[in-house]
Amino acid sequence: MIDENAMPGAGLSTPGASGGLGASAKRYVGQPVKRREDAKLLRGEARFVDDIDLHQQLHLVVVRSSEAHARLVSVNTEAARRTPGVRMVITAADLPGRIPLEQIGYHDVYPWIEDLTHPIFAADRVRYVGQPVAAIVADSPYLAEDAAARIEIAYDLLSPVLDPQEALADDTVRLFDDHTNEALRIEKTYGDTPGAFEGAAHVVTGTYTVGRHSGVPMETRGCVAQPEPGCRGVNIWGPVHAHDCQRIIANVLQLSLADVHMRHTAIGGNFGVKGGVFPEHIMTAWAALQLGRPVKWTEDRLEHMVATSHAREQVYEMSAAFDADGRLLALTDEIWDNHGAFLRQAEPLVSDITVGMVPGPYRVPAYSGVLHVVLSNKTPSAAYRAPGRYEGTFARERLLDQAAHQIGLSPVEIRRRNLLTSADLPYEPGMEICFEPYHFDSGDVVDHLDKALAAADFDQWEKEAVELRAQGRLVGNGVGILMDKAGLGLYETGAVDVDPSGRVRVRTGASSVGQGIETVLAQIVAEEFQVDPELIDIVHGDTDLIPDGVGSWSSRSTVLAGGAARQAALDTIDKAKRLAADMLEASIDDLVVSDGSIMVAGSADSRLSLAEIAGRWDGWSARLAGDEPGLGAQAVYVDSHMNYPYGVTLVQLEVDPATGGHTIRRFLTTTEAGRAINPMTTRGQVIGAAIQGIGGALYEEFLYDDSGQPMCTSFMDYLLPGAQEMPDVDFLMTEDAPTPNNPFGAKGLGEVGLIAVGASIASAVDDAFSDGQVVRKVPVAPETLWHRALDRRPNVGVPHPRALEVVAEGSHG
Amino acid sequence: MIDENAMPGAGLSTPGASGGLGASAKRYVGQPVKRREDAKLLRGEARFVDDIDLHQQLHLVVVRSSEAHARLVSVNTEAARRTPGVRMVITAADLPGRIPLEQIGYHDVYPWIEDLTHPIFAADRVRYVGQPVAAIVADSPYLAEDAAARIEIAYDLLSPVLDPQEALADDTVRLFDDHTNEALRIEKTYGDTPGAFEGAAHVVTGTYTVGRHSGVPMETRGCVAQPEPGCRGVNIWGPVHAHDCQRIIANVLQLSLADVHMRHTAIGGNFGVKGGVFPEHIMTAWAALQLGRPVKWTEDRLEHMVATSHAREQVYEMSAAFDADGRLLALTDEIWDNHGAFLRQAEPLVSDITVGMVPGPYRVPAYSGVLHVVLSNKTPSAAYRAPGRYEGTFARERLLDQAAHQIGLSPVEIRRRNLLTSADLPYEPGMEICFEPYHFDSGDVVDHLDKALAAADFDQWEKEAVELRAQGRLVGNGVGILMDKAGLGLYETGAVDVDPSGRVRVRTGASSVGQGIETVLAQIVAEEFQVDPELIDIVHGDTDLIPDGVGSWSSRSTVLAGGAARQAALDTIDKAKRLAADMLEASIDDLVVSDGSIMVAGSADSRLSLAEIAGRWDGWSARLAGDEPGLGAQAVYVDSHMNYPYGVTLVQLEVDPATGGHTIRRFLTTTEAGRAINPMTTRGQVIGAAIQGIGGALYEEFLYDDSGQPMCTSFMDYLLPGAQEMPDVDFLMTEDAPTPNNPFGAKGLGEVGLIAVGASIASAVDDAFSDGQVVRKVPVAPETLWHRALDRRPNVGVPHPRALEVVAEGSHG
Repeated sequence: MIDENAMPGAGLSTPGASGGLGASAKRYVGQPVKRREDAKLLRGEARFVDDIDLHQQLHLVVVRSSEAHARLVSVNTEAARRTPGVRMVITAADLPGRIPLEQIGYHDVYPWIEDLTHPIFAADRVRYVGQPVAAIVADSPYLAEDAAARIEIAYDLLSPVLDPQEALADDTVRLFDDHTNEALRIEKTYGDTPGAFEGAAHVVTGTYTVGRHSGVPMETRGCVAQPEPGCRGVNIWGPVHAHDCQRIIANVLQLSLADVHMRHTAIGGNFGVKGGVFPEHIMTAWAALQLGRPVKWTEDRLEHMVATSHAREQVYEMSAAFDADGRLLALTDEIWDNHGAFLRQAEPLVSDITVGMVPGPYRVPAYSGVLHVVLSNKTPSAAYRAPGRYEGTFARERLLDQAAHQIGLSPVEIRRRNLLTSADLPYEPGMEICFEPYHFDSGDVVDHLDKALAAADFDQWEKEAVELRAQGRLVGNGVGILMDKAGLGLYETGAVDVDPSGRVRVRTGASSVGQGIETVLAQIVAEEFQVDPELIDIVHGDTDLIPDGVGSWSSRSTVLAGGAARQAALDTIDKAKRLAADMLEASIDDLVVSDGSIMVAGSADSRLSLAEIAGRWDGWSARLAGDEPGLGAQAVYVDSHMNYPYGVTLVQLEVDPATGGHTIRRFLTTTEAGRAINPMTTRGQVIGAAIQGIGGALYEEFLYDDSGQPMCTSFMDYLLPGAQEMPDVDFLMTEDAPTPNNPFGAKGLGEVGLIAVGASIASAVDDAFSDGQVVRKVPVAPETLWHRALDRRPNVGVPHPRALEVVAEGSHG
Repeated sequence: MIDENAMPGAGLSTPGASGGLGASAKRYVGQPVKRREDAKLLRGEARFVDDIDLHQQLHLVVVRSSEAHARLVSVNTEAARRTPGVRMVITAADLPGRIPLEQIGYHDVYPWIEDLTHPIFAADRVRYVGQPVAAIVADSPYLAEDAAARIEIAYDLLSPVLDPQEALADDTVRLFDDHTNEALRIEKTYGDTPGAFEGAAHVVTGTYTVGRHSGVPMETRGCVAQPEPGCRGVNIWGPVHAHDCQRIIANVLQLSLADVHMRHTAIGGNFGVKGGVFPEHIMTAWAALQLGRPVKWTEDRLEHMVATSHAREQVYEMSAAFDADGRLLALTDEIWDNHGAFLRQAEPLVSDITVGMVPGPYRVPAYSGVLHVVLSNKTPSAAYRAPGRYEGTFARERLLDQAAHQIGLSPVEIRRRNLLTSADLPYEPGMEICFEPYHFDSGDVVDHLDKALAAADFDQWEKEAVELRAQGRLVGNGVGILMDKAGLGLYETGAVDVDPSGRVRVRTGASSVGQGIETVLAQIVAEEFQVDPELIDIVHGDTDLIPDGVGSWSSRSTVLAGGAARQAALDTIDKAKRLAADMLEASIDDLVVSDGSIMVAGSADSRLSLAEIAGRWDGWSARLAGDEPGLGAQAVYVDSHMNYPYGVTLVQLEVDPATGGHTIRRFLTTTEAGRAINPMTTRGQVIGAAIQGIGGALYEEFLYDDSGQPMCTSFMDYLLPGAQEMPDVDFLMTEDAPTPNNPFGAKGLGEVGLIAVGASIASAVDDAFSDGQVVRKVPVAPETLWHRALDRRPNVGVPHPRALEVVAEGSHG
């Protein structure tokens, strides 16, 4: 129904991006340029962290807590130390310390916050299964594993804290003796919420739960650290977001920034969960510096399941007040955000965003949200693609479905009445998210919804579902509408250099984590220089080559890194024109860019390629003139405001009444992009996100038993969907509302495709069953559907207790 | 007689260097601060190129020509290729190309010059013993050596060209079919030389020869090249002068500059002979890129003796015209500079300097010099510490000794009458050296000579020698006076960064090659910041961290790199004051530097350390303010004029008449430093240079047989003097004439100690024998002294033919 090959951006004029280019200029921005990242990957030339092997390299293996909550009575390392090939055994006694938080303002609000950060090694207490207790460094990973088995840890077990609501209700078991289990409380409020509820025609209330799941990249975490001989320096490969990691590692190891050289690797998936510094990075670097030899640590999948950040586990108690016409008057929510045992380095950003983004794309005149950051004896949680938005959108959209039912409107209609339109702009309800005012500046969500429904021919979906249900089939439709926030992080750096050979190097502070930023930056610079994007090399992730940068998270890189690269390209052209004016004896004002050259306008013979200009401006020539040699420029792009893409997810789903199996019959995800630099990579990003959203909606969950033991530590137990389970995803991109914030008009699209998937699938499931039950928790796991299908046939089998729990209000797994 | 512990610079006021510091400021510039380079070396922590071993590293061995001059009939690599462990065999068929010259103006003067550059591999002809013909890359150096022995090379022998004068006189044997053996001719002339000779009271003529010798660093050359996976990039360790090498390697391998990452190593001696790119570097990097694996090449000592650059072999035919009082009227010389088979990358710089520096520290009203750059079937020559000055000073000072004898003046007196004094300033005779006008701007050489003679108590030396000779002992004194040129190369870069930890990083474009530049830069920045120099880390030799630089040669780094580091430090202080003014709510004008802090003058409590300022100015704070984060600055120091240090070398030497053995009884070398940043490292530099000068004067020579076979390919045959042969060297440094060219007043002192050693030792030998013979060639090798001693006793033994030759005019070895 949607032509997947149609590239909405292709052929568009590209206002703003290249204002200086004439009508005959080649366009790369807005075109479906092929991903330059792929050739390396397909040829096996990409170097992942585990591909790095260094001379005299040693191997680190982490010994982790087997208990969820216990006092550490003793850690006996003697037998391990005596194991052949063991070079070092490390515990908290050798390497104390914690991973500090980023410095972005929360310290002022929560002065105790550093007390709750993650220790490198557990010292006197373990707080989750998987927490590092010791590490072995040995000549091979096998010897290190052997020695790890000889570490004798004596535990004095404590009761585990697992449920986030119970954790606060019952204060007798605490993770930290000096703190309650509420690490932080974040409140956001505007408008007269109590007044609105008093006068409301309808009040709808519900409790909604998102299960604990997370990003599961193909490549697990890893780290190689190599001491620089004769100085304090250390080269480090592996951690994602070079500059952030450089700062934290230097801080913890008491090195200068200049001593920590973060080196580039290919990243086999990040999705947020690998971002930042983990205890394992610190212990690897420390061991390398202590031993004077390179040390490698490679996480196995079991470790990844218990030690890489989890995400998503949140419980929402939510109420909405409506007038008689179903128009929202106010929204309140109380959120229990089960953060696990410690605060990871980038927290409490996720929690802040969570409570701030609950109102989403709706006109909510009054809002009051409170979020409890709850400590528990589970793996610490952190950002996973679309953090807070996936969860909050699930809860809010479920509430709206419930409200539609209660008020007697269709799910589409109640949304249409409440979505933001261009008449609401600028929409500034008076709330801060991550220390900046929430400010929706461009778009019309109703118009976008209409386009989405039209593109899907949703009326036909509805008709079809009714017909099929009349035939006894369990077919239902779901709709979810989302607002994302993108582009946090203030600024990004970019530098462009033209080589005398004609190649162009772009250095970016962004991280290439699979999202396609290399392609996008090449397009942006290629358009300004009017050269083939293949001539452009992108360099990232190396703190020697890129002295300052921020990194890729929060769907920020196209706007911020793209803005910086574009500015550096424009500044390079300015320099090229300045030099060419002398070399060609022309006036700067007469010069134009044409085919990688500076040309006197209208005089095609009078031109110098950028490469020639670079070659002529060698050190000697440039320094004599008091100038910098070569042809290039560095730039910084600052954008103190996030941008807000939005979209719709429409799902048609069928459940097999006999088996509880499901089929996603139709799936359309739509996005208002502002402007897409590359509609092909945008589509890939959005569809990939949708697939992850389906995983969280129907399959993936980290379950724990009552003692806090994780029950999902392999792909046998953690249901990561494969290609076979996935539907064809249709994608509609609109470019109706470019953001005025940046020269591209672009909105960040790295996460948007994920956000409404849980909501729309839950909605479709309820529609398919039409049994009066309400899905209040994702994932709607296979056995849940099976039990719900069984429920339809009285006296057939006994419902499984967990399935009951899942559909019951207020509980979670 | 000279207190070696007296540091002339210590305690001096330091005008110019730190004008902004108050009287109570700590002084580091001018102090004998300990060498910061040494700790690493003494602890074995320094990493030399051969210390680098990389995972999956292969080893390259070069197969070299065994013939001096031959056509290559065939190079059969089949057996070598079949040798187990061999990964690659390379010849000119695989890797053609040459090492291009630096681009500094000679191409315009000598358009054919690139035809004479060094091929990477010999293609159809070999031109010296040691020239690379093929290379083997194998799993170990042993396997590579085995395979190298299986390369079968068929030669069609040609007559060798060995003697530089014969090479031009007889044109029947040429190295290049299309060129005569005169590669280039360089002429420099000013004044009316013919007129001066016509009216002269005295004309003195002589022929003088300097033997072929060179720098023999403890560490031979080497190279490790590591391809960067997934891109065209290559990391290279080993070649000296990072930026120069980056440019040449990128050029030859057709890579972008950005693809060639030069990496730092410790350098176990350079002395000029290891500077720049050699064919071996190119073949190593190319093999690594082809094979996708790291490749290491380590030169052995035999290879070093035949393949690393030689130096010094020059023949001077020189005449001087004097008036009746012994005042110079004119000087002419014709120089045959035996350059060996090819022009190395930095040539013909040495030849240019040679002919330009012959007049030296003397008032020469008219000068006419012509230098033949002669091609021969010997190892190519290039710069070795004090190139051209050692040779020219030997010839000129010998001529002056001869003139003194002829005119009837003492050697000291004839010099005193002709040396430049302050009355001659500025001395600009109208001659260019390396494309810049020769321009002596500060000093008084007569005054300096008097100080040297007084410091030595030279009258007493003379009296003593006369007395001892009267007793039949062979004791003589020699005096040599020199002018050096220093600081070529236009500019250098420097960057300073203050870390929040308090450490300071200085990045320099200079190369740390043992000369102590790390210490000197630390002193300069420490003085400006008023911090302990131990807090300062110096980074050099890494093209990623230092995007542009020139390197350390031509005694340039203290002035140019020091100037850049100082400027960067001053700019850093400006930034610190700008930030501190806001932070302290003070006026910038009230702020001063004190103990690594910015302080409100007179208000010791109102201060911020540089570290604190750096820490507060993080990315977020700085970018919001539109500023660069952190506290630091980059600077370029441009000095388009060389500076001209001068000095005196006084030697008292005794020959044992029975054995011909010699003892250097007294040795004083003096230098006008302008201003020494570190009098201790200056002293070390000058004494080390003097020792190398003694090697060239009495021991070291690369001899060839008539077929062009090198006869000195080990330390058995090449007499490198050891500590045991070396005298105590006294050193007098004056700081009477700071150069106005740079803020320190410093003159470059890396080579000055070497220049007059050959001249003064030759003079002392003649004085000791007082036999009417004249030393016309260095080295005055041990057997020469033995034969000359024999000559004194008629009918005792038969003089060795070579000894006769050595003292005969016009011949050379």
